[in-house]
Amino acid sequence: MSEFTEDEKKGFYKAVYSRRDVRSHFISKPIKNEILSKILNAAHHAPSVGFSQPWNFILIKDDLTKKKIKESFEIEKEKASHHVEEPNRSKYLSFKLEGILESSINICVTYDPSKFGPFVIGRSSIPEAGLYSVCCAIQNLWLAARTEGIGLGWVSILSNETLKDVLKLPEHVVPIAYLCLGYVDEFAEKPDLEKAGWLPRLELKDVVYFEKWEEKENSEWQEIQEMIKTNLDYA
Amino acid sequence: MSEFTEDEKKGFYKAVYSRRDVRSHFISKPIKNEILSKILNAAHHAPSVGFSQPWNFILIKDDLTKKKIKESFEIEKEKASHHVEEPNRSKYLSFKLEGILESSINICVTYDPSKFGPFVIGRSSIPEAGLYSVCCAIQNLWLAARTEGIGLGWVSILSNETLKDVLKLPEHVVPIAYLCLGYVDEFAEKPDLEKAGWLPRLELKDVVYFEKWEEKENSEWQEIQEMIKTNLDYA
Repeated sequence: MSEFTEDEKKGFYKAVYSRRDVRSHFISKPIKNEILSKILNAAHHAPSVGFSQPWNFILIKDDLTKKKIKESFEIEKEKASHHVEEPNRSKYLSFKLEGILESSINICVTYDPSKFGPFVIGRSSIPEAGLYSVCCAIQNLWLAARTEGIGLGWVSILSNETLKDVLKLPEHVVPIAYLCLGYVDEFAEKPDLEKAGWLPRLELKDVVYFEKWEEKENSEWQEIQEMIKTNLDYA
Repeated sequence: MSEFTEDEKKGFYKAVYSRRDVRSHFISKPIKNEILSKILNAAHHAPSVGFSQPWNFILIKDDLTKKKIKESFEIEKEKASHHVEEPNRSKYLSFKLEGILESSINICVTYDPSKFGPFVIGRSSIPEAGLYSVCCAIQNLWLAARTEGIGLGWVSILSNETLKDVLKLPEHVVPIAYLCLGYVDEFAEKPDLEKAGWLPRLELKDVVYFEKWEEKENSEWQEIQEMIKTNLDYA
């Protein structure tokens, strides 16, 4: 079990580099329950602080629910547009940023801090660690979907108040993500916002420091400093 | 590129199910810079809200830094123990919860909300979305380490104030995770806290709802309700 073969590694890195945030290209092919269970189970096997497993997954296909969420998206998208100046404002408004209605299944992933609480190992000094566990589960879910050929888009242009109301979440439960899943006719080679020239992909050397913040040159780390200057994009 | 072979899928799921939070069993074999770069690059190819890539990775091997962090761990571990009653308190105190000094490399992963800001697509309605992106990167990093045979432990029993001070983080930058990486002589079959009987692994059916909070029976979802009642543990 311990060592990974080259093919197994290849499979993992392929999931990482070909995963996309999918907002269009959804097709109507339904997701089999067996596949959906596999994806959810991968999510459920994420790490969690103090083994608290504080996530829940609400599966949604009801049209009325989807429409209410889509409405919230429209309102919030418009609101946000006032924070950006022209010509970017028009560009922003022209982007397709969700596939709520076209995707076959929506999943709301929530965080329940009361689960196995109040004392959870590792959550006393940094209470946000519970939230972070839920995000790890979401990334497992996302990668699992990709390996199964299923596109996933995370919609964060939404009112959490509306989400809580529509999905009947109790006051203490926090909605973390609203995800749209479905088969797609293609996975884009690059992220939509990169292709549209909205923002560039940073180079690895731009995000790695040595020993402390903003330290880019450190004699103890010379070899890797050189290494990450070359393009490592496996995408 | 699109379809995954059975072997590629197997590789991905193997990473998910054999990944562990590692606090012991570290060995002294050093991590090659090439492997470390691969792992960091997988992290950097995580999804991010509005393609903001708001993460930084601070690589640490300086003993003095590690010792200061370990000290903070000891203080916070002791503090937290007062929130739990005996006999669990003694049990908690007996657990080995970090491998800061024994692991060959520590990585602090940070969130910089100012990157590409202030307007980031998808972050106006839910500002926490930036944090969530950083967690997705951490999960990529964790799984990549596992495929390379490297153990990783996330230490959240720490003072973020100490971390900020020791690593010279600017005020606006948030430390999200302090990770310990190193080769190990074994990956445990089950999470340490499960094996120790601290908490049980929930079943998948306990964390999945249908259409709204706490709805477990829904005629539209009957097949998958049955399916997730059976044990899907691939670990």
